[in-house]
Amino acid sequence: MATMVAGDVKDLSLAAVGHQRILWAERDMPVLRAIRERFEVEKPLAGLRMSACLHVTAETANLARTLVAGGADLVLVASNPLSTQDDVAASLVNDFGIAVYAIKGEDESSYYRHIAAALKHLPHVTMDDGADLVSAMVFIALNRLDDIHTEVRGWASGLSDLERQSLVGDVVASMEETTTGVIRLRAMEKDNVLKLPVIAVNDAMTKHFFDNRYGTGQSTLDGVIRATDMLIAGKRVVVAGYGWCGKGVAMRAKGLGAHVIVTEIEPIRALEAAMDGFEVMPMEKAAKVGDLFITVTGNIHVIRSEHFAVMKDGAIVCNSGHFNVELALDQLEKLAGGKKTSPREFVDEYTLSDGRRIYILGEGRLINLAAAHGHPASVMDMSFAAQALATEWSLQMRGKLENKVYNVPKEVDQWVSNLKLQTMGIAVDTLTAEQTKYLQSWEMGT
Amino acid sequence: MATMVAGDVKDLSLAAVGHQRILWAERDMPVLRAIRERFEVEKPLAGLRMSACLHVTAETANLARTLVAGGADLVLVASNPLSTQDDVAASLVNDFGIAVYAIKGEDESSYYRHIAAALKHLPHVTMDDGADLVSAMVFIALNRLDDIHTEVRGWASGLSDLERQSLVGDVVASMEETTTGVIRLRAMEKDNVLKLPVIAVNDAMTKHFFDNRYGTGQSTLDGVIRATDMLIAGKRVVVAGYGWCGKGVAMRAKGLGAHVIVTEIEPIRALEAAMDGFEVMPMEKAAKVGDLFITVTGNIHVIRSEHFAVMKDGAIVCNSGHFNVELALDQLEKLAGGKKTSPREFVDEYTLSDGRRIYILGEGRLINLAAAHGHPASVMDMSFAAQALATEWSLQMRGKLENKVYNVPKEVDQWVSNLKLQTMGIAVDTLTAEQTKYLQSWEMGT
Amino acid sequence: MATMVAGDVKDLSLAAVGHQRILWAERDMPVLRAIRERFEVEKPLAGLRMSACLHVTAETANLARTLVAGGADLVLVASNPLSTQDDVAASLVNDFGIAVYAIKGEDESSYYRHIAAALKHLPHVTMDDGADLVSAMVFIALNRLDDIHTEVRGWASGLSDLERQSLVGDVVASMEETTTGVIRLRAMEKDNVLKLPVIAVNDAMTKHFFDNRYGTGQSTLDGVIRATDMLIAGKRVVVAGYGWCGKGVAMRAKGLGAHVIVTEIEPIRALEAAMDGFEVMPMEKAAKVGDLFITVTGNIHVIRSEHFAVMKDGAIVCNSGHFNVELALDQLEKLAGGKKTSPREFVDEYTLSDGRRIYILGEGRLINLAAAHGHPASVMDMSFAAQALATEWSLQMRGKLENKVYNVPKEVDQWVSNLKLQTMGIAVDTLTAEQTKYLQSWEMGT
Amino acid sequence: MATMVAGDVKDLSLAAVGHQRILWAERDMPVLRAIRERFEVEKPLAGLRMSACLHVTAETANLARTLVAGGADLVLVASNPLSTQDDVAASLVNDFGIAVYAIKGEDESSYYRHIAAALKHLPHVTMDDGADLVSAMVFIALNRLDDIHTEVRGWASGLSDLERQSLVGDVVASMEETTTGVIRLRAMEKDNVLKLPVIAVNDAMTKHFFDNRYGTGQSTLDGVIRATDMLIAGKRVVVAGYGWCGKGVAMRAKGLGAHVIVTEIEPIRALEAAMDGFEVMPMEKAAKVGDLFITVTGNIHVIRSEHFAVMKDGAIVCNSGHFNVELALDQLEKLAGGKKTSPREFVDEYTLSDGRRIYILGEGRLINLAAAHGHPASVMDMSFAAQALATEWSLQMRGKLENKVYNVPKEVDQWVSNLKLQTMGIAVDTLTAEQTKYLQSWEMGT
Repeated sequence: MATMVAGDVKDLSLAAVGHQRILWAERDMPVLRAIRERFEVEKPLAGLRMSACLHVTAETANLARTLVAGGADLVLVASNPLSTQDDVAASLVNDFGIAVYAIKGEDESSYYRHIAAALKHLPHVTMDDGADLVSAMVFIALNRLDDIHTEVRGWASGLSDLERQSLVGDVVASMEETTTGVIRLRAMEKDNVLKLPVIAVNDAMTKHFFDNRYGTGQSTLDGVIRATDMLIAGKRVVVAGYGWCGKGVAMRAKGLGAHVIVTEIEPIRALEAAMDGFEVMPMEKAAKVGDLFITVTGNIHVIRSEHFAVMKDGAIVCNSGHFNVELALDQLEKLAGGKKTSPREFVDEYTLSDGRRIYILGEGRLINLAAAHGHPASVMDMSFAAQALATEWSLQMRGKLENKVYNVPKEVDQWVSNLKLQTMGIAVDTLTAEQTKYLQSWEMGT
Repeated sequence: MATMVAGDVKDLSLAAVGHQRILWAERDMPVLRAIRERFEVEKPLAGLRMSACLHVTAETANLARTLVAGGADLVLVASNPLSTQDDVAASLVNDFGIAVYAIKGEDESSYYRHIAAALKHLPHVTMDDGADLVSAMVFIALNRLDDIHTEVRGWASGLSDLERQSLVGDVVASMEETTTGVIRLRAMEKDNVLKLPVIAVNDAMTKHFFDNRYGTGQSTLDGVIRATDMLIAGKRVVVAGYGWCGKGVAMRAKGLGAHVIVTEIEPIRALEAAMDGFEVMPMEKAAKVGDLFITVTGNIHVIRSEHFAVMKDGAIVCNSGHFNVELALDQLEKLAGGKKTSPREFVDEYTLSDGRRIYILGEGRLINLAAAHGHPASVMDMSFAAQALATEWSLQMRGKLENKVYNVPKEVDQWVSNLKLQTMGIAVDTLTAEQTKYLQSWEMGT
Repeated sequence: MATMVAGDVKDLSLAAVGHQRILWAERDMPVLRAIRERFEVEKPLAGLRMSACLHVTAETANLARTLVAGGADLVLVASNPLSTQDDVAASLVNDFGIAVYAIKGEDESSYYRHIAAALKHLPHVTMDDGADLVSAMVFIALNRLDDIHTEVRGWASGLSDLERQSLVGDVVASMEETTTGVIRLRAMEKDNVLKLPVIAVNDAMTKHFFDNRYGTGQSTLDGVIRATDMLIAGKRVVVAGYGWCGKGVAMRAKGLGAHVIVTEIEPIRALEAAMDGFEVMPMEKAAKVGDLFITVTGNIHVIRSEHFAVMKDGAIVCNSGHFNVELALDQLEKLAGGKKTSPREFVDEYTLSDGRRIYILGEGRLINLAAAHGHPASVMDMSFAAQALATEWSLQMRGKLENKVYNVPKEVDQWVSNLKLQTMGIAVDTLTAEQTKYLQSWEMGT
Repeated sequence: MATMVAGDVKDLSLAAVGHQRILWAERDMPVLRAIRERFEVEKPLAGLRMSACLHVTAETANLARTLVAGGADLVLVASNPLSTQDDVAASLVNDFGIAVYAIKGEDESSYYRHIAAALKHLPHVTMDDGADLVSAMVFIALNRLDDIHTEVRGWASGLSDLERQSLVGDVVASMEETTTGVIRLRAMEKDNVLKLPVIAVNDAMTKHFFDNRYGTGQSTLDGVIRATDMLIAGKRVVVAGYGWCGKGVAMRAKGLGAHVIVTEIEPIRALEAAMDGFEVMPMEKAAKVGDLFITVTGNIHVIRSEHFAVMKDGAIVCNSGHFNVELALDQLEKLAGGKKTSPREFVDEYTLSDGRRIYILGEGRLINLAAAHGHPASVMDMSFAAQALATEWSLQMRGKLENKVYNVPKEVDQWVSNLKLQTMGIAVDTLTAEQTKYLQSWEMGT
C-alpha cells in the first residue's frame, strides 16, 4: 500500500520515461552525485523543511534527490509555466517520493496555486529562480496582500499577523539562482524590505561564469533550431544584452556562422561587444536588418511596437531572459490587429497590415526551456552543486546571517571546480614553494 | 637660448621620428585628447609634482602631454629596461620639454638611477607600472635601505628620517597600471606597510577589460611574429595563465590558427579555458608538446629547468607578463652549459647537451614591448584616460583618502566608455521610463 | 470520389502536421519556389516518368512539388530506412497526390520493396542519394541478380533481357546528390559498367560547397544534442574525415566550444586541419581521449574493434556519413558480449567487460537525419534548385549525353547563387568595363 | 682571389645579417631542406640555366640554394620593386655565389634592367611570380617590342628573329607561383600566344591551399600592424575579394577581433562569405563604413575615386594582391589635389578638400611584403618544395610538354604534404585492406 505523495503533476504514467531522463542527466553530473553520496551518510539537512521554486527538469531532479538524500523535507514547484518536463515531474513523485507541483503549460492560476503549496510548507530554506517565493513571502509580511496573486492571497489572508511574520522569519536562508532574481533581491535590500538572508548562488563563479554563458549560449540556439529548423549560418542574429547570458548567446550564434549584432544599454558592455568583433547598434536600427532576434537583458519591453513595426518580413523573435516581459507581445498583437496563427509548435505568426509576417517563438518565454531542454546537465552539475553546498553552509551559519544578500563562500567555488576538473580528466599546476612565497610578498620588483 | 630640460635619453637627434610617432598615436587616442583639451583650459593639476614610472612609448607620451597640459610638473622614467622607445623619449624632451629618464636596453644601474630621479622629484602623485616607485618609497620609509638598489640607496641614505617619511607622506595618491602591481600593493596593504593611498587604475573596467585582453592579446602575438617571422597557424601554442591577459593571448593565438594549450593554477580559470575550447594540462605535460610558449601569469619561474629539459628541439619561449621572472633563464643557462648564441635580433638560442635547441625571445622580458610597440594606441586611449581622470579625482579627494588600495570611481569608467563609443561611431540604447522603473522595482515577477 | 494515389507511408492521418512542415520549409526555399513557379507555366518535364530515391523530408517534399509542377510523373522512395519524416510522407500522398514509398524505421525488406517500386515506374530520369537506384539498374542490366536484394530480384527476374537493358537504357540521365554516390558512380565509370549518363549534382558549387559544409555541420551537432542533451563546450570531439562535411562538423563543434581532434587518411587534408587550428592524430590515439566521436568519411569501419576497446567510459559515438558502415557496430557488439540497452531514444549503451560504457547514437545511421531534421531548408533550397535545373538541362541534352559522370553546367550555379543572394538581401559588385578588359588581357604586368 | 659573381644588390655589407635570416628561415623549411640534400647528391638540374623572377626574401634564398644544389646555373631577379630584402640579396651574392639583381625600392628602369638580366641568361627553365618573364619573352617572340619596357627593348631589339624565337623556344618549362600569373597565362593560352609549357605551381594543393590562405592571411595583417600599430579588434575591416587569399585575410582579421565586411564580384563566393558569418555588401556601401580596407582580388581599380570620395576621415587602405593596380591611387591623388604627406614609414596621408584624411599603406603594393616579411617560412617551405619538384618533373617530361598550362602532378602534392606532416610530428591514418577495397568498389550500398 502506497503512502500518497502530495503534488500536482500532469500524468504519473510518464514516470518511466522521466526516470530514464533523470538517470541520463545524472551521468553528466558527477559533482552533484559526489555531494549526494556524502549527504546520504552525513544527513546535514535532516529535519529541514525546504521549498524550491525551480525549472522542473531532469537536472533539477538530481538536485532534489541530493537535498532529500541530505535529509530535507522538500516541496518542489515550477518557476515558469512553460519549463516543466512533465515526465520528470512524474518520476520525482512516483519513483523518488518527492512532492512536486508543476505542469507544463499550466495557466497563471495553477502556477500560483503551486507557489502557494510551496509557501504552505513553511520552509526553513527556500530556493528561487527569479525570487518569486521570496517576494511572495515579503508581500505577505508587509501585509501587501493586494500585490500577490489571488491564488496565494486566499491562503495568506487566513494567516494571523504573527504567522505572516513567522513565514519569512523562520527562513534560515533563501538561495537565488538567477541574475534577474539577484537584481530583484538587491532592490529589496535597498528598499529595506528584505526580511531574510539570501545567498546569491547565481553569483558563484561556478554558476554564472559557466551556466549563464555556456549553458544559456548552447541551449538558446538549440531551442531556436528545434523550434524553427532554421540554418543559423549567414543569418543576421540580433542579441539584445551583452551580460554573461548575452555573451554566451552571441558566441554560439557566431560559432554557428551568423553575423551577430549586439544591442546594449551599458557603454562598457557595448565596447566589449565591439572589441569582440560584433556589430553594435541601437535596437531601432537593428530591428530593420535582423533575421533572428534574441533578448537576454533581464529588462522589460526590450523589443516593442516601434521595433516590430520596422522588421523584415519573416523576422523571427524570441527571448531567453528569465521573465517573459522582454518582448512586448501585447503591442505586437495590437499591430497585427489579431492576425495571429500557429504554423508550427512553439511558433506564432503575426501578420502586420502590410502583409509582413513576424514569428514569435515559445510565446516569448525562455526559448531554451520552452523548445529545448534547458541547460545541459554538465553545467547544471556545477550550479546545483553550488546550490546544495550553499544550503549546507547557510545551516552552519544559522543565526549569524543578517537580512542581506550574501555571496557564496569562495571555498564552495574551489571545491566544485576542483572536483569538476577531476571528472573531466583535467589537471592543473600547483604552486611551488617559491611561487607561493613570491605571490605573498611585495618586495621583489624589477 | 634654450632652457635645459633635465633627463637622460639615448639620442636627441631621434626626436623628429619620435615626434611623428607621438602624433600618429594621438590619432587613435581621441578620449585622451578630449581630456587634454579640457586640462589645457582648467589646469586641474597646477602646482603638482608628478613622477611617472611607465613604459616610455608613443602612447605614454600622449598621457605625459595631457598631464603637463593640466599643469603638472612631470618626471617620466622607464618601468622596464627594454620597453623604452628612444625616439619617443627624445621627442618628449626635445619637442615637449618633459623630463624623461629612459634608455632602451639600459642596464640595472641605469634603470635604478632613473628611478632615483623620479623619487628625487618629491612627487605629490606617482604613477606606477608594477609598483616599483611605491615599493622604493615604502622601503625608504621603513628604513629598509638594504632592500633597495644601490643606485637608489645612495640618495636615500642621505635623507633624514623625517625626509624619508615625508617622501611617501606627501604623496596624495599613487596610480597603479598593472595587475602585477595591484597584487603587490594589496600584499603591502595586508602587511600594513602601504603608507600612501593607491588608485588601482588597472582594475578600472575601461582598463583591464580592454587593455589586458585586446591590447596584450594582439601585441604579444605581434611581438612573437616580429621576433621570429613564424607562422602561427598549425602551431601548438602553450599559454601559461588564463587571467585577462592570458585570455587575450589565447584568443588571438586561436584566431591566428594555433592549437592552443592553456596551463593554470586556479581550477575555475582552468575550467573556463576548457569550456572555451582550449586544451588544458599541467606545464609538465605541455612542455613536451609545445611549439611556442607564452607566459602571462604574474608569477615567478613558471617555466623552469624541469620544463626546459623536456621541450622539443626548436621550441620558442617568451614572456608577456609584467616582470621578467616568469622564465627561469638562469636554470636554462645552466642546462645549456653556456651554449648560447643569438641567431637573430630578440632571439637567443640555447643548445642542450643532446643538441636540442631552445629559443628565448626578448630575454624573457614582455615580448610585446621588447619586440613590438606594446599596446595599440586605441586601447591605451582608454587606460590612460582612466589614469588622467583618476589623478584628477584623487586631487579632489585630497585629505580624504586612507592608505588603502582604491578602485577608480564608476563615473570614470562611464565617461571614458561613452566617449570612446562616440569616437568609434557606435550608439547604444537608452532606457525608457518604463524600463528604468522596472529595473528599480522588485515587485514584478512571473 | 478520390483517385487512389499509390504509395506506402506510415499513417495518412499525420498529413496535416506534415503539410504544415512542408509549408514551413518552403518559407526558406525561395529559389526552389521561383523554379516551381516557372515550371508551373512552362511544364518542361511534361510526359516524363521520374523516380527519386531521396531522404523524405519537408525539403524534399518541396523538390517533389517542383518536379510535379514541371509536369513529371513522380515516384518518391526513401534513401535511408531511418531518415523518413512520416508526417511529410503522409502529406505528399494525401495533400499533393504524389506517390511516396517510405516509412521511418522500415526494415531492409521494406526498404528494398520501395526501391523496387521506384524501378517498376520505368523512369526516364532518376534521382539518387547514394546511387542505390542506379546500382540496382546496373546489376539488373548486367544480369547480376544475385547482387541485388531479394525484394528487387523477385521483380527483376521476371524481366526479359531486353527489358533489363531498356530499364537502364531508357534513362535520359540520373542525378546524384551525395559525395558517396559520386564516388560509387565514378568507380562504375572506371569499371565500364556505367550504363547511363549521370549528373553529379553533388559537385555543383551551390550544392557541396554549402549543403555538405553548413548543412551537415549544423545539423550533425543538432542531431547529437537532441539525442543526448550534452554540452559541447569543453568536450574533446573527434571528427573522422576532413572533407567538406568534416570541415563543416569540425567548424561547428569548435563554434560550440569543443576541443576538436581530426583524423584523416589524406595528408593534404590533415595538413589543412592542422593549419585550421585542430589537433590531428590517428584514430588509434584519438580513441583514447575523445568524449564524442563523429565519422564523416564515406569509408567503411572507420571506428572499429581496436578503437572501441580503448575508449573512455561514457564515450559517445555517431556517424554523419551517408552509409551506416562507418562504425563497425557488429565488432562493438562482440566486444560487449551482447550487453546492450537503450537508456534513451536514439541512444544504445554497450557495456564492455570491464564495465566501461560506450554510447552509439541512431544505430550508426546519419545522426542529422536520425535524431534531427537533416539539413535546414535554407541550404537544401540551393541543392534542390540545382537538382531541378540539372534535370531540366539533361532533357535539353537528351540524346547528346554519353554514359559518363557529368558536372552540372556552370550557368546553373550562377543562376542559383544569384537568386539566393537576392533573397538574402545581399548585393555584389559588378565589373567595370576597365576591369573586364583587364581580366581578359595578359599584357599588363608590373 | 674571388670570382666575381654577377648581380646588382644594394650593399654587400648587409650579407652577414642576410645570412642569419636565411638560416633562420631554413629552420622552418624542413621539406625544402630534404630536397636540397637529395639534389646535392643527384644533381638533377645539372647543366640547366634557370632564371627566376621572385620576391627576393629569406625563403626564396632557400629555394635558390636548393636549385643551385641541384646543379642549376641560376639568375634571380626581383618580381616586385618593393619586396626585396636587401640583406638577403647581399648574402646570396656574397655567401652563396648566386647572381641576384634586386634592390628594395628600385625604380621602374632598374626593375626592368633586372628583368633583362634574367632574359639575357637564356634560361632553360624560368620561374615567375606574376608572369613578367614569360610575358616579356612572348612579346619578344611576337615582335611586339613596343609592348615591353624600354630597358628590355634595348637588348631585345638587337636580337635576330631566330634568336627571338629561340629565347622562348629553348625554355623547357616555366613555373608560375601566383594566381594572378596563372590567370594571365591562361589568357595567353586562350589567345594562342603561349609559346612555352607552363607549370601552374600556384595551383598545387600544397601551394595555394596553404600559402594563399594561411600565408597571405597572417602576413597581410602583420604588414598592416607593422605599418600602423593599429588595434584590429573592434575595427570594421573591408576585405575586397573572397578567393583563397581573401579567405585567409578575412579569417585572420576576424581572428584578431575585427568586424569583417567582404565585397565580391562572384555570387558563389559572396554566398560563401555570408555563410561564413561575414557581412557582404558592394564596395560602394562598404566604402562609407570601413576603418581598414584590404584588396586581394587580382583585379584593377577595385577601390577608386567614387569609393575614396565617401570614406570616413582616417580610413586606412592597402592592397595585398599581386600587382599594385588594385587601388586607383592616381584618382585619389587627383581627389586630394596633391595634398599628400608621409606621417610614418609605409604610410601616405592624402587630405581631401573637406579635410578628411585617407591613409594608403606601402604605396598600394602588397603590404605583406612591403611592410612585413611576406609569407612565413613554414608555408613557403611547401610552395617552394613544389617549385623545386615541379622543375625536376618538367625536366623528366622534356620534349613531351606542349605549350599549355599544366598542373603539378598529384605525386608532388602527396610527397610534400606527407613530409611536411612528419616534420610537424603529425601522423595520419592508413587505409585497411577492407577500406581500400570498399573505396574502389561500387557494389556495396545501403
